[in-house]
Amino acid sequence: MESSALWKRYKKHLTKCQGLGITLDISRMNFEDSFFRSMQPEIEKAFTAMDALESGDIANPDENRMVGHYWLRNADVAPTPEIQSEIKDTLEDVMGFVSKVHKKEIVPPTAPKYTDVLSIGIGGSALGPQLISDALGTHRDKLKLHFIDNTDVDGIHRVIKSLGVRLKSTLVLVISKSGGTPEPRNGMLETMAAFERAGLSFAKQAVAITGKDSHLDKIAVSESWIKRFPMWDWVGGRTSVMATVGLVPCALQGIDMRALLDGAAKMDEITRIKDAKKNPAAKLALMWYSATGGKGEKDMVVLPYKDRLLLLSRYLQQLVMESLGKKFDVEGNVVNQGIAVYGNKGSTDQHAFVQQLREGVNNFFATFIVVLQDTARPGRDPEVDVESNVTAGDFLNGFWQGTRTALYEEGRESMTITCDKMDAKTLGAIIALYERAVGYYGTLTNINAYHQPGVEAGKKAAATVLELQNAIVDYLQANAGNTFNIDELAAGMGKEDDVETIFHIIEHLASNKRLVKKARSQYSAL
Amino acid sequence: MESSALWKRYKKHLTKCQGLGITLDISRMNFEDSFFRSMQPEIEKAFTAMDALESGDIANPDENRMVGHYWLRNADVAPTPEIQSEIKDTLEDVMGFVSKVHKKEIVPPTAPKYTDVLSIGIGGSALGPQLISDALGTHRDKLKLHFIDNTDVDGIHRVIKSLGVRLKSTLVLVISKSGGTPEPRNGMLETMAAFERAGLSFAKQAVAITGKDSHLDKIAVSESWIKRFPMWDWVGGRTSVMATVGLVPCALQGIDMRALLDGAAKMDEITRIKDAKKNPAAKLALMWYSATGGKGEKDMVVLPYKDRLLLLSRYLQQLVMESLGKKFDVEGNVVNQGIAVYGNKGSTDQHAFVQQLREGVNNFFATFIVVLQDTARPGRDPEVDVESNVTAGDFLNGFWQGTRTALYEEGRESMTITCDKMDAKTLGAIIALYERAVGYYGTLTNINAYHQPGVEAGKKAAATVLELQNAIVDYLQANAGNTFNIDELAAGMGKEDDVETIFHIIEHLASNKRLVKKARSQYSAL
Repeated sequence: MESSALWKRYKKHLTKCQGLGITLDISRMNFEDSFFRSMQPEIEKAFTAMDALESGDIANPDENRMVGHYWLRNADVAPTPEIQSEIKDTLEDVMGFVSKVHKKEIVPPTAPKYTDVLSIGIGGSALGPQLISDALGTHRDKLKLHFIDNTDVDGIHRVIKSLGVRLKSTLVLVISKSGGTPEPRNGMLETMAAFERAGLSFAKQAVAITGKDSHLDKIAVSESWIKRFPMWDWVGGRTSVMATVGLVPCALQGIDMRALLDGAAKMDEITRIKDAKKNPAAKLALMWYSATGGKGEKDMVVLPYKDRLLLLSRYLQQLVMESLGKKFDVEGNVVNQGIAVYGNKGSTDQHAFVQQLREGVNNFFATFIVVLQDTARPGRDPEVDVESNVTAGDFLNGFWQGTRTALYEEGRESMTITCDKMDAKTLGAIIALYERAVGYYGTLTNINAYHQPGVEAGKKAAATVLELQNAIVDYLQANAGNTFNIDELAAGMGKEDDVETIFHIIEHLASNKRLVKKARSQYSAL
Repeated sequence: MESSALWKRYKKHLTKCQGLGITLDISRMNFEDSFFRSMQPEIEKAFTAMDALESGDIANPDENRMVGHYWLRNADVAPTPEIQSEIKDTLEDVMGFVSKVHKKEIVPPTAPKYTDVLSIGIGGSALGPQLISDALGTHRDKLKLHFIDNTDVDGIHRVIKSLGVRLKSTLVLVISKSGGTPEPRNGMLETMAAFERAGLSFAKQAVAITGKDSHLDKIAVSESWIKRFPMWDWVGGRTSVMATVGLVPCALQGIDMRALLDGAAKMDEITRIKDAKKNPAAKLALMWYSATGGKGEKDMVVLPYKDRLLLLSRYLQQLVMESLGKKFDVEGNVVNQGIAVYGNKGSTDQHAFVQQLREGVNNFFATFIVVLQDTARPGRDPEVDVESNVTAGDFLNGFWQGTRTALYEEGRESMTITCDKMDAKTLGAIIALYERAVGYYGTLTNINAYHQPGVEAGKKAAATVLELQNAIVDYLQANAGNTFNIDELAAGMGKEDDVETIFHIIEHLASNKRLVKKARSQYSAL
């Protein structure tokens, strides 16, 4: 397309988000002129489904749950007075608690004030808080955030050791809806042990963020933790960043959570507009559909030209892939849906994988995210001319434009989301934009975007492995003095079908000197 | 496949890397029994090409360069005595310099010792050092590493501000082969300005890692920087982690670089074996070929079950995608090759995108990386039982097995690389394994894996944008007093074809209050 035609296309299809300083440009996507018209019935269905969801329908029928993350930033649209006041009261409660910590009205037992926050959670209880913390954090944060987001004991210890003597001034958040998810449970137990080794009282520095009456809730009550905040069953993990899960850690850090919520609320209004051409979330969803054939045929490469947005692609990986990556549609047909998401940041990635984007396999569409203000206070923050009249930020902007052009020349599709600046309001709006787009796309592809049935399979298989581990240890102890090779051991246990699993378990136990301790004679023969 | 048949397949195809404690399991990949035989001619060609490369052929003909990263860990195999002694002497020089810093024989002008290292580089000059630093760092590191890897002035300032008063005890590494790459150049200039604002002498705390007689080399000489280390033209950026680029920062951090080199050297020996069934790199390349049809049809999902390997997928993104993502084969035919790479870590990703891997679009193959030792000192590091006789590490291992099984049940392919432990030697070996696999795969798909012609296009397009920016500023200054809309401005400049680019440039300048300063009257009318 000629540049003058492209410029017309840019202006024709640009969506401006009034009051947010955000635009969405789809001019470099390959849709035909007739595309929006042809998709009109589908997108209307999506608008209707979204209305039903927002008014409290059971939008996640498999789990018999409402889906209420949009209520979190505007409680007045929640379907019942009870939910409305729960949201408002909880927000007040969070702000009140955080304010007391900041004012040193809540202090740890053996230090004059809290200096650090250790947040223990996984998936939705980690990715959102990590994104916000990194995107909006500064060297002047009120408290410094740290995360334990796995069941890797070495990783857990590394985080705790990095705190050093500041463990005594660290507020610990344990975030788990059920309290039964092993990763945060294990992270909590290892952290409790570290507190004990340091002669500190865990309970007196611990806060639970969990479902009412969950296992974790009961522990927090019985041990008199300093505070508990609720998690609601109508908020899914991957959309919980504006619930207590995200609010508590980030407010403690000193981030303006009201602005985050306001930005999301404003974007929610804009993405309720029932005209796909004026609704950036509908437009995003339609572009995903256009690019992937509605079947995940292309990957979504997310390239923010901003260091602060490095974790956005990882956040969107969960939001998009866990929501859309489904085997069955809502009628039970096998569809194997989804869109793969990856990316880090520009221009850094231009020196990594953009070579392939431009020249290699054409299996993706790119989404650039551009931030116009180079610093938080343009004209006041120091910035040098790296060449005559040219700043480092001019290069960043130039690299975005250059890469966009280079991809277009090779027939690679891209979109661009441009933000005036990167602050709490803008980030809240971007998150809300993608949440809504995922919801619309779920309807376009006729899948339930609010459950995650595939996650259970891996957990169940893992539970089987751990049961087998206990059976192995029991068997070896019961047969102390005998030696076995792997096949004999499996046969002896009557578990011939599990021989490979037994092998991997024994390899792991032996590497950690656990079998040596428990059954040396047998181990030595394996 | 029945579990007994799978166990046989596991044992039959398992490759053990003697002396490294690393195995490669390909039993869950879908290749046919005849696959290895059918690929025999191709893999022999790859062995021959690798021999030629290692003996000093011009393996990167487009840039008329030798490709010598394998020589870095065993200088004796380098093709000339000059290169051999250059490698050895440089290694001694690095170790000597680092030792003096650690022993406080080299100290900053206004502090008793160096406490931090600020490494400024992008692409291959950042991703390798970042991976090693994060994978092998501890709370006892001798110096703390920080990275500037972009031309984002806000990101640059955030890193510098996080150093605070420790700027005076920070050793700065500027890493750039030519010295002309804008990102590190801009990072250096912003850092120099920060030193000046703090009343510190940049040159007295700065080290250059650059090509001999490059622009950066000349600056370092003329300003009497404290040290210079060479970058060689026979080492490409994405394989430079065992050259000065990686050695200097990581040795300063206190990481055992000799062990890293030794692990790589040992893996190099193993991956020279001219039998695909015994050569894990040849096997990896063949599995990539099998999974992707030799055409990038599937994405490579890298899932290390280890916090320390979080950055491995990002490192491999560059190594694999920049090497293999090529438009032309070596004969000049359009092939659009490549393999997309993404992933973070297990079990964390099980709570993010593994839902899609198991149930969604089957457009990937997974590579699990498992580390058997849960802590650095099994049996000595503290570890609690999170359930009876079960540790957090048992869960991590169980989750890997569970996810592998869950994927297999749904017909999703996976490989597993198992390491006894994660240390410098093992990490060096893993890096060398993938370097070699990429080289073999390049021959299998008949492309030049050692250049990156697509990177230039984006740079050139960006340079055009910056030229245009200067022309706009000049034009507005020359026409002070007149006002224009965007189309009039483009027409007035005789740049009608660039109207959209002009628009984006003006948006950016205005957002940063630069046009206001320079041409308020015109800007206000735009």
